[in-house]
Amino acid sequence: MNVFIANIKGHTANLTAEESWHCYKVLRHKAGDEIFMIDGKGASYKGVLVTANEKQCTAQINEGPIYQQKRNYYLHLAIAPTKQLDRIEWMIEKAVEIGVDELSFIKCKNSERVNIKIDRIQKIVESAVKQSKQAFIPKVNELTELKTIVKNTSEIKLIAHCEEEDKEHLKEIEFKNKSVFVMIGPEGDFNNEEIELAKNNGFKALSLGNTRLRTETAGLYVVQALALLT
Amino acid sequence: MNVFIANIKGHTANLTAEESWHCYKVLRHKAGDEIFMIDGKGASYKGVLVTANEKQCTAQINEGPIYQQKRNYYLHLAIAPTKQLDRIEWMIEKAVEIGVDELSFIKCKNSERVNIKIDRIQKIVESAVKQSKQAFIPKVNELTELKTIVKNTSEIKLIAHCEEEDKEHLKEIEFKNKSVFVMIGPEGDFNNEEIELAKNNGFKALSLGNTRLRTETAGLYVVQALALLT
Repeated sequence: MNVFIANIKGHTANLTAEESWHCYKVLRHKAGDEIFMIDGKGASYKGVLVTANEKQCTAQINEGPIYQQKRNYYLHLAIAPTKQLDRIEWMIEKAVEIGVDELSFIKCKNSERVNIKIDRIQKIVESAVKQSKQAFIPKVNELTELKTIVKNTSEIKLIAHCEEEDKEHLKEIEFKNKSVFVMIGPEGDFNNEEIELAKNNGFKALSLGNTRLRTETAGLYVVQALALLT
Repeated sequence: MNVFIANIKGHTANLTAEESWHCYKVLRHKAGDEIFMIDGKGASYKGVLVTANEKQCTAQINEGPIYQQKRNYYLHLAIAPTKQLDRIEWMIEKAVEIGVDELSFIKCKNSERVNIKIDRIQKIVESAVKQSKQAFIPKVNELTELKTIVKNTSEIKLIAHCEEEDKEHLKEIEFKNKSVFVMIGPEGDFNNEEIELAKNNGFKALSLGNTRLRTETAGLYVVQALALLT
């Protein structure tokens, strides 16, 4: 059965404008059809469409809310967009499938790409949430300068860079019940000044194993590590 | 410095035909240039080109062999090709970056794609090996019927399917020093007959966590799990 994102008020669910269009025009649902809905905040519902047109689809809820089990950590991943957009886009899709709470994009000195279409990312995120049968939609933030983003106040702050030094290993960090913020650099890596700035703001260097991972692989590696190790 | 795949004999390295062409025509190397080489079996070398033309590049080795550290498990991943070829292709790239020993492709009842270009996969594998600074090239096998592939003789045999039942959890399996064979099904999943056949051939059902992963995400999840949990 198809899943739609809706605003819930009591026993009534109003599909968002875009979802209404998709529900009515693309999937050709009509009043009387049964649909699944999520509120994007962790709850899912079952209901029957009472109004269905391309501007507004509304359903009467007859089952729910059913709450998605919460992860025992909060992961905020901040990553520099890759030169090839499809690489960062698939990473986002996969990260959401596996489980991430917040996504940010960093503008670095060595960034080959200094723009990203947040609307497009938002759509990828929502589609991955629905496909993987989740009910919580991760928060997506705009592209931000590194000097601003390092001020983040998470309990664990990590920077994954390729310079050689003593690094923290994923397996040795206790992520359970913690808010975690991880920064992944661009293809050309963070420069020394940026690494220094991060450290002065409470970041520790993070090792991602023995092989050299691409930016997007590194991002997904972190998401998956937390899913596996907590 | 660029890395090339070469056949090593004593102190002489002959780049493969394709690598010779790439070295001479694309990267415009000439005799006297210093290059890095790998033999694809785990050893890397440094040397100086003595002959360079589009048919054959030959180098005199002056450093090496340096051996890549072996993983403490052998992972053979068998996956059903996805309908969209780029999805399986990126999975292969990422799996190689993180670490896999052997790759196979399975033909299932619900497969929407029943062909795959092994030459193209081989190129993606080699490129990912070089990019991630490894020296071992994973083995790539042809598309094989499920009924044949289940005969595999690895020590640990796992099947990741979406039917509900008691499943093994990645965290609870001891993979260290074991040969591991994991099968990932197509978009439409393995059917009951296939799951039964696998079980009769020593496979156990594997859980990949609480969210429903796409075929290619599931494949990468397994590769990364072994890298993290061993």
